Amino acid sequence: MRAVMHQLLTDGIAPELTAVDRLFERELESDLACVNQLTRYVSRFRGKMLRPTLVLLCGKATGTLTPAHITVATVVEMVHMATLVHDDVLDEADMRRRGATINHLKGNEAAVMLGDYLISHSYHLCSSLNDQFAARVISKTTNQVCEGELLQLSNRDNLELDEETYITIISRKTASLIAASCYLGARLSGADETTCRKLEKFGLSLGIAFQIQDDILDLIGDPSEVGKTLGIDVEKRKLTLPIIHFLRSAPPEHQDLCRSLLQENGAAERIRNLLIPSDSIAYAKDRSKRLVERAKQCIADLPDSESKQTLLMMAEYTVTRNQ
Amino acid sequence: MRAVMHQLLTDGIAPELTAVDRLFERELESDLACVNQLTRYVSRFRGKMLRPTLVLLCGKATGTLTPAHITVATVVEMVHMATLVHDDVLDEADMRRRGATINHLKGNEAAVMLGDYLISHSYHLCSSLNDQFAARVISKTTNQVCEGELLQLSNRDNLELDEETYITIISRKTASLIAASCYLGARLSGADETTCRKLEKFGLSLGIAFQIQDDILDLIGDPSEVGKTLGIDVEKRKLTLPIIHFLRSAPPEHQDLCRSLLQENGAAERIRNLLIPSDSIAYAKDRSKRLVERAKQCIADLPDSESKQTLLMMAEYTVTRNQ
Repeated sequence: MRAVMHQLLTDGIAPELTAVDRLFERELESDLACVNQLTRYVSRFRGKMLRPTLVLLCGKATGTLTPAHITVATVVEMVHMATLVHDDVLDEADMRRRGATINHLKGNEAAVMLGDYLISHSYHLCSSLNDQFAARVISKTTNQVCEGELLQLSNRDNLELDEETYITIISRKTASLIAASCYLGARLSGADETTCRKLEKFGLSLGIAFQIQDDILDLIGDPSEVGKTLGIDVEKRKLTLPIIHFLRSAPPEHQDLCRSLLQENGAAERIRNLLIPSDSIAYAKDRSKRLVERAKQCIADLPDSESKQTLLMMAEYTVTRNQ
Repeated sequence: MRAVMHQLLTDGIAPELTAVDRLFERELESDLACVNQLTRYVSRFRGKMLRPTLVLLCGKATGTLTPAHITVATVVEMVHMATLVHDDVLDEADMRRRGATINHLKGNEAAVMLGDYLISHSYHLCSSLNDQFAARVISKTTNQVCEGELLQLSNRDNLELDEETYITIISRKTASLIAASCYLGARLSGADETTCRKLEKFGLSLGIAFQIQDDILDLIGDPSEVGKTLGIDVEKRKLTLPIIHFLRSAPPEHQDLCRSLLQENGAAERIRNLLIPSDSIAYAKDRSKRLVERAKQCIADLPDSESKQTLLMMAEYTVTRNQ
């Protein structure tokens, strides 16, 4: 299913995605062997290329692709990889709460520097463009990504986290870069500011929906389908939408149980069993679906095209995916 | 002594340094209280403002200061602060080798994100300039800084580290940003490319000398004068110039003793006592002095000015300082 979907979404932009891949590799090349050895690890993380795909599809849906689209698509992918690498530092740090090893430590230090190397090269690549426009958008976006991460960090262990703050966290941490990808894609095709802003809103709603779905999957997904360790949010006492809803609306004794489980280690399975029969998963899914509807509305009046159809399909897939 | 020296060096550029301070604060301001709370910690680290001082002095020594000088001076200071914050992550990681606590861990995670926030804002500030020129220089420089750090990391525990690799490490990790500060200072004043390159070389030699002196002080400095924890390099098995020289030229039994001490924890004091009577400290000091002479040569034919005199004085101070 995943492979078929990926094929469908990227069919019209396959050569451009290959160009992004190539530029990504080229930009990271160093004269130091130890650096090249480390950046090779990054390819392990490479995944769906969601952000470059959005740059390219939004560009095509509103005009013609240019070489700058390839550059910006590579930049947003590199920024995304940098955040994944540094997220790993945070995750590893947590793993060490349950037993530190020197190997973990060595990995940790290399991950900090590797993330820095990626972020530096993303700005370096961005500075190769003719003007400052994309650099301004990208750096403003990375400011927001960091703010989202810091807000999330400062709310770890906060069992009173409300839905509004949660939405602020994921808007900045995740949706801002997706929104910037859509905005820049249109902008580089010469679309007018109104159209660019519509695509930005499309990306923002899509990005929030995407993160809500990610958080649902982390809570109740099937590990064999999702293909990564689940239950991480709960272990890190990072409250996500289903739990925020549950702690507000479940019967008081269930709320109390959930609160005490959240303060234990290794309670992800029991929290999952508590959440599944409740209506909190449905609540989160519904909020995510409504955001996807809003996203689709944002691009409704774009002229019809294969790229537009693919964008609509991507939006739909955001909330139906199991992985 | 330090205060007097600082006064002497910054006398002619005091209003500009105040402007840098103000822009630094303003750029980091967020609408999120938790972010502002964290960035306030950065002010603890603020120190000598070496890099902004060089931007401004090189600008004045070759022409007239512009608003862009203030921006770039703030950018290089912010980049420097980001590297200090992430270096702390690396150092803290090491401290945890000798006993991890959750508090350290929490500090670690916040430090990763705070460093990212600083680096993001440094590029954001840089993108406010009219053209891409400074952004290209700065991002190329941060690529090199990361490479230097990664090369250093990959040579930790390498008792065979040679002098050439050591110089490559400190050139990229430390001297590249100092060189870029000097280069951009001159460039923004409209100096011709030959002059800009001379100032870049001045900064590069000065930066290498500066780091050698820093490494000497870490090894044999007086903690009450230097004002920070010393012996960190040895504890981290990061070989620096005096030790590299010692392991190559001391009597074989002293070399063996040094090698085995380097593999122990808490042996900094004994390594210090082994190094002090040798000629390895003098060797490192001499190399540093020769670099300062080379730096001074690079700016010898600049027209005489107060700023030029201050640059020469700074170069001298690099190798005579005890802190």
